[in-house]
Amino acid sequence: MQQDVQCHGFRAAAVEAGIKKAGIPDLGLIYSETPATVAGVFTRNKIQAAPVLLSKPRVASGSTRAVIANAGNANCCTGSQGMDDAEAMTAEVASLLGLAPREVLVASTGVIGKPMPMEAVRAALPRLVNSLDAGGFEGFARAIMTTDTVPKLIQRQGTLNNRRFSLVAAAKGAGMIRPDLATMLCFICTDAAVESRHLQSMLTRAVDSTLNRLTIDGDTSTNDTVLMMANGAAGVAIENPEQLNLFQSLLDDLLADLSRQLVRDGEGVTKLVELQVRGAVSDQEALQMADTIAHSPLVKTAFFGEDANWGRILAAAGRAGADLDPDRVELYFDQVCMVANGMGCGPHAEGKVTAVMKQPEFRVTLDLHLGNGRATMLTCDFSVDYVKINADYRT
Amino acid sequence: MQQDVQCHGFRAAAVEAGIKKAGIPDLGLIYSETPATVAGVFTRNKIQAAPVLLSKPRVASGSTRAVIANAGNANCCTGSQGMDDAEAMTAEVASLLGLAPREVLVASTGVIGKPMPMEAVRAALPRLVNSLDAGGFEGFARAIMTTDTVPKLIQRQGTLNNRRFSLVAAAKGAGMIRPDLATMLCFICTDAAVESRHLQSMLTRAVDSTLNRLTIDGDTSTNDTVLMMANGAAGVAIENPEQLNLFQSLLDDLLADLSRQLVRDGEGVTKLVELQVRGAVSDQEALQMADTIAHSPLVKTAFFGEDANWGRILAAAGRAGADLDPDRVELYFDQVCMVANGMGCGPHAEGKVTAVMKQPEFRVTLDLHLGNGRATMLTCDFSVDYVKINADYRT
Repeated sequence: MQQDVQCHGFRAAAVEAGIKKAGIPDLGLIYSETPATVAGVFTRNKIQAAPVLLSKPRVASGSTRAVIANAGNANCCTGSQGMDDAEAMTAEVASLLGLAPREVLVASTGVIGKPMPMEAVRAALPRLVNSLDAGGFEGFARAIMTTDTVPKLIQRQGTLNNRRFSLVAAAKGAGMIRPDLATMLCFICTDAAVESRHLQSMLTRAVDSTLNRLTIDGDTSTNDTVLMMANGAAGVAIENPEQLNLFQSLLDDLLADLSRQLVRDGEGVTKLVELQVRGAVSDQEALQMADTIAHSPLVKTAFFGEDANWGRILAAAGRAGADLDPDRVELYFDQVCMVANGMGCGPHAEGKVTAVMKQPEFRVTLDLHLGNGRATMLTCDFSVDYVKINADYRT
Repeated sequence: MQQDVQCHGFRAAAVEAGIKKAGIPDLGLIYSETPATVAGVFTRNKIQAAPVLLSKPRVASGSTRAVIANAGNANCCTGSQGMDDAEAMTAEVASLLGLAPREVLVASTGVIGKPMPMEAVRAALPRLVNSLDAGGFEGFARAIMTTDTVPKLIQRQGTLNNRRFSLVAAAKGAGMIRPDLATMLCFICTDAAVESRHLQSMLTRAVDSTLNRLTIDGDTSTNDTVLMMANGAAGVAIENPEQLNLFQSLLDDLLADLSRQLVRDGEGVTKLVELQVRGAVSDQEALQMADTIAHSPLVKTAFFGEDANWGRILAAAGRAGADLDPDRVELYFDQVCMVANGMGCGPHAEGKVTAVMKQPEFRVTLDLHLGNGRATMLTCDFSVDYVKINADYRT
């Protein structure tokens, strides 16, 4: 996590509201001193938590001032009471900040199906608002953690017309992460000025190639939310194609870095694996195959065991439903060729691959030699600790 | 496993050929004293092992006399040498039994990408053929085990025109099991006489509703093979619709029982869960949703933890891509209602559900209240031992 992260015109805060059992921060707030444009990407799960249902139309309005976020309770499968509670969270924050409720967004993460402990939340809100501070992002990043072991907070800076501007992102991940959804809670602030339609298209594009290409366990949440706010406080406007390109590349880089941090801190993760499928008939088929391999429990347990069991990777590739000629397949671990023409390169190669797999991070490249389609995904191993963490989650 | 299993006109045997490291049986043979009709279901993986490629057209011929099967080596990704070896295994068995090579089938299971140790296999074949015995099925069932902890061998009997006939099935499962493939090695013998076209259609139908509806870890093998032989030695012919119905129900029952045994002995399994989705828009959507829930690592680790974390089941259902109205969903654990109208039934219900989950086997029923579609799958938990077994598989 980067230290001393700030973004002009934004303040953040965190308090211990008592939503979680342990005495740790669980309620966070980000506030923009002036109206900010806003963009969002939300879960595509058919079961959506109350905060998602409430925030989505407010994001669509294009403008916001604040986001309240909590860990410990997802406020999901909580019926009309859940909607009332989400609404109340934003209304009380709005009243304390002198805003309209529709200018406040809300995001929640944690256990599904328990009513939000609103008394505790209400009691904590004045403290939360009073502790808003330009240096409050670090506390905020801690307050949204669930099974994360480290907070994720990063910053990128750009310069335009001799003025510096910042992008800051705080996220929580760890479990329930899958590429076909927005995948986690993630809050991005920039002090550049960006029209909401540009902000939305750049966010969607960046998420597609970063947060939507990583997987911990293939599961997805009912609460996944990525929100981005731009308040223009740096006095820099992102408008023309050149400026948009610069901003897009900063945003892509920010979220790519964040993706690696999220996978590295995934539940029980000991290996970060960058999986590339190339030579597929199409990008779509390459992605389909990468997705199948990246989610295979047998492949992931072999990563955990540092076992050069390449047959499992080929077996997963073979059931992906994408074109594959068994006699042309080539497989690399980092630079080491393990499979050529569909056959293993022998014990010598296997020894080298075992050495590659002993590293905490490595690359696996599957070349199908059929066409130009390619796709890359970030995945990880499946460890004994993953099972322990998730078997004991609520106890 | 049933004891003293026999099937008229069939003999079986097993020997220790030294294909596996440990000194345990790893090579088995089933022999029909007279020509048998044959049917088969094979893996749909695009990477198919040599024995699958060799046996498929021989099964299509409709007639066979023997099957040789080994554990410890999959003879997959072994190129033209692998095909030669598979061919040689059948040719040498044929020569010892006085048959043509095309009358012998072969199936292999084990590690991918290692050449079959043919010297060891050749040396063992005469012993194998010499020990063929009517009571040899139990040894055969042991010889095809990989990470299975118990052999799977079962029998059903029927009566037609006052003549008894038998169905006997031996299988190995444990890992790499997924519903959209044939899922394992399974060998079924019957001493009834059944035309090969009937045999094939009844086998396909039975597999669809049994072996294709269970999952251990969602992975699938390059070697999955289900073979069925009918030699007519009981003097009973299965020909007219009534007889075919009787036989189908015996076969369905045989494979349903076998499916439960396979899941119960899945790698690291401590819970057998019968998952039913009903009230879906169609059977197809119900199956799609059951499949997603049954493969969710978060759901499976909660089963292992005996944690009534019903939110994970709903979250998995919500991402299945099938129709779902969050406000209508109902969820039961055995007879206990845990979720009604999309909301939890409270701590009292949760206490009861926790008690249900402490059993080694229980039922989970998700009712969508949208239509008449329904599907049932057998699944299991994801345990610490699953990870340990698969991280250390080859060491």
